[in-house]
Amino acid sequence: MNIGVLTVSDRASRGEYEDKSGPAIVATLREFLSCEWSPVVRVVPDERPLIEAALIELCAACGLVVTTGGTGPAPRDVTPEATAAVCDRLMPGFGEAMRAVSLKSVPTAILSRQTAGLRGTSLVINLPGKPAAIRECLLAVFPAVPYCLDLIGGPYLTTHDTVVKAFRPKA
Amino acid sequence: MNIGVLTVSDRASRGEYEDKSGPAIVATLREFLSCEWSPVVRVVPDERPLIEAALIELCAACGLVVTTGGTGPAPRDVTPEATAAVCDRLMPGFGEAMRAVSLKSVPTAILSRQTAGLRGTSLVINLPGKPAAIRECLLAVFPAVPYCLDLIGGPYLTTHDTVVKAFRPKA
Amino acid sequence: MNIGVLTVSDRASRGEYEDKSGPAIVATLREFLSCEWSPVVRVVPDERPLIEAALIELCAACGLVVTTGGTGPAPRDVTPEATAAVCDRLMPGFGEAMRAVSLKSVPTAILSRQTAGLRGTSLVINLPGKPAAIRECLLAVFPAVPYCLDLIGGPYLTTHDTVVKAFRPKA
Repeated sequence: MNIGVLTVSDRASRGEYEDKSGPAIVATLREFLSCEWSPVVRVVPDERPLIEAALIELCAACGLVVTTGGTGPAPRDVTPEATAAVCDRLMPGFGEAMRAVSLKSVPTAILSRQTAGLRGTSLVINLPGKPAAIRECLLAVFPAVPYCLDLIGGPYLTTHDTVVKAFRPKA
Repeated sequence: MNIGVLTVSDRASRGEYEDKSGPAIVATLREFLSCEWSPVVRVVPDERPLIEAALIELCAACGLVVTTGGTGPAPRDVTPEATAAVCDRLMPGFGEAMRAVSLKSVPTAILSRQTAGLRGTSLVINLPGKPAAIRECLLAVFPAVPYCLDLIGGPYLTTHDTVVKAFRPKA
Repeated sequence: MNIGVLTVSDRASRGEYEDKSGPAIVATLREFLSCEWSPVVRVVPDERPLIEAALIELCAACGLVVTTGGTGPAPRDVTPEATAAVCDRLMPGFGEAMRAVSLKSVPTAILSRQTAGLRGTSLVINLPGKPAAIRECLLAVFPAVPYCLDLIGGPYLTTHDTVVKAFRPKA
């Protein structure tokens, strides 16, 4: 089972800066998941065509694709637009829930434009760029992720219930 | 006064499954409303053109149209897309409020893509498919529904205030 | 430094009604801001082309543009549509946060369709029409506004910290 991890960052993609956000996602998912899985990692600059191409490639190989970076208001922040462009349908509840939980920590949480969406049988989730916010946001939405993948025909995820408990409603 | 109740379900529309959600909406509205009204009930499969046609027909006859089903992430869930397509303007606060209240019960509430919108002088509200969630969501938004209908030129609704209290701000 | 204040109201634009909302925004911003600034005030009717033209003009001169009126469900309420049309990117967290705080006061807060967005180096924020709700909504989002303007290349705002504290995360 593959999980895509896409870092969107001009500096990281040029090698001027060590990508800490992608590894933070991988570390958090290792902590959360009890099933076998492999990360498929990509780093691209804040360019819509390159973000869209990376999302399309990752969705072809992965039932879950998580991005980091490019969700703020800065002129080059276009990850939500790239996500919306490649997804068939959007999942507004993810962005709402992640902003609501971040808002308990910092008032600038409302500046995050992060979203989530479905492309075929894959779920794409935008996360913030900062490693501290990544775990907080994943923790807020992850209990719903395994059931979402069940519903869209994605892979079957299991979690370490003491860390984050996957919720699967009875039919 | 007519209120449209649209059940969106492949199985219910083929008669393989008894529709419990449409009747749950009718029962909840009977409990809420103190004015005279008649339900106009339709059942359609999860097909965008058929959902859109039913919404258009119901909005022509009803100031309020409530849907159930087809709001999740499953491939055939397209009720929010059909709703957005037939509405002139969307009402994002309804989906936010319904997801926020459902999130207190189940973490998978973020998977609901339910929305609401205006088509001419009618208000369309998407509700979840599960009867238990229907009452919870209607209870969360209904205090604002009568005033919304006042503002769009719809019918004048009155409620049983001990169950749900319609709020009409003074001008 | 200029801040645009746009009142959207049929009656106020015809002079049938004294505009109290625009002055309420100016008074609230005077209370919040410790830096020098000048309001650029406009009043237009609830007509999309006129709202869009005023937003375009104000964004050319102002790093921050605040609107009041036209965000409800009434047929002539089209301020959010005009805002979305002139903005390059939307900021969904503003509308969510303002509706969430208003919902603590009145259940009809879910009827507000207010949004926010970016046009070049300007931030546009829709506020409600009622003076009492204006201060409440501005107070909810203003801690994030100065940092947002920093990120988009707008003017540097400072606040009276005892009234509202601008939050600027460390890089």
